[in-house]
Amino acid sequence: MSDSDPLANVRVVLCETSHPGNIGAAARAMKTMGLSTLHLVRPKRFPDPEATWRATSANDVLEAAKVSASLDEALHGAVFAVACSARRRDVAVAGADARTAAARLIEIARTQPVALVFGNESYGLTTEDVNRCQLLASIPANPRFSSLNLAAAVQVFAYELRMAAGVEPDSASAAPALATHDEVEGFYGHLEQTMSEVGFLDPEHPKKLMPRIRRLFARARLEPEEVNILRGILKALTHPKKR
Amino acid sequence: MSDSDPLANVRVVLCETSHPGNIGAAARAMKTMGLSTLHLVRPKRFPDPEATWRATSANDVLEAAKVSASLDEALHGAVFAVACSARRRDVAVAGADARTAAARLIEIARTQPVALVFGNESYGLTTEDVNRCQLLASIPANPRFSSLNLAAAVQVFAYELRMAAGVEPDSASAAPALATHDEVEGFYGHLEQTMSEVGFLDPEHPKKLMPRIRRLFARARLEPEEVNILRGILKALTHPKKR
Repeated sequence: MSDSDPLANVRVVLCETSHPGNIGAAARAMKTMGLSTLHLVRPKRFPDPEATWRATSANDVLEAAKVSASLDEALHGAVFAVACSARRRDVAVAGADARTAAARLIEIARTQPVALVFGNESYGLTTEDVNRCQLLASIPANPRFSSLNLAAAVQVFAYELRMAAGVEPDSASAAPALATHDEVEGFYGHLEQTMSEVGFLDPEHPKKLMPRIRRLFARARLEPEEVNILRGILKALTHPKKR
Repeated sequence: MSDSDPLANVRVVLCETSHPGNIGAAARAMKTMGLSTLHLVRPKRFPDPEATWRATSANDVLEAAKVSASLDEALHGAVFAVACSARRRDVAVAGADARTAAARLIEIARTQPVALVFGNESYGLTTEDVNRCQLLASIPANPRFSSLNLAAAVQVFAYELRMAAGVEPDSASAAPALATHDEVEGFYGHLEQTMSEVGFLDPEHPKKLMPRIRRLFARARLEPEEVNILRGILKALTHPKKR
């Protein structure tokens, strides 16, 4: 990981990709823009000769790719994740266009690891996956035909990341150290369990409560100490010293 | 051609394309960004089933494509042409990056027809072809691997054209209604009192706990419903229905 090149702190995560050719083309798109870290969550076929063929000279990116069993595993250690989706959806996560999302990713990637998450070619990302991210980004497109090929979408986002990385950082807006994906998920788990215990949340009918709460804290982008404070409050409320 | 939509005045010209799959993928890339006019100069194989397959739902663009014997023929009637090239070359034409080139193209395309010209997958555009254009544009890329796939390059330029055309504002990023000052202060008061009751906060020595918490929620910019949820959680934790 590099402090000087924010692109070295960006991982691209492809979830449940169906066609190995798209994985290869995505690797090529990444490398042309200076990205090199690829995570594959449950790819249908990988490794595969078609992936290798479409990657052309980006085979080093493919060979270093990590295959994960879950999105949580692929996001391990990342402090900020952007879900990429063609369609605006009924999710709790805040929305942004590709350019805005790239600027935010690069701002944080100057010091900490971040992720850009893409779904399956046909059905995209699940709502559950999107809710594990802090921002939902889409590429402004023709409303009558907004379906970019997966590798083309990776190309546009990677291009915007490179453009954003070329802009000198504003020292006044330097990103603080952020909590990792695992730390934040640990807080959500703690909160959900506590709310169930006190009857505020019915685990069988959670409705939109947890997604709403995720959206709130995703906007805030929690710092490690803040996670500790929030979990400390939860613990104190359920095990009070005095009342 | 339309005065109101500058994208309708942009034609994409692909010169001597070797692989019909790239023509199809380029047509798809164009259509996702609202471009519909495609000219093919001496394509190696066209029409071709692979072009049709890769175009997916952009077959209307392929079917309307005009095949030309020369670049001059394809540029007929255009008032401004941008040559796209990965490498800077020893030509007389001025250079620009993709974003700058797209802005100039759109400015002119608001009233007159313009063209964006791409070369062969292996050898690009000839110097003679570049010199028939008024600007040489390149996509900022990894200097060690700047070779974008043809359709990926079309995608990035088409995307920059759509961005430059200033399409509809992104409703997804519109600011939501925020909680009022008094609503947020009411939550802080509620939280502070609750934390004192359970012994997590010593009102005599509050240290920096409340300022830290204020800073966290100030970043999130709370919405009215979120204030209600947070206060509901506090109330449930101090007056549980069950434990």
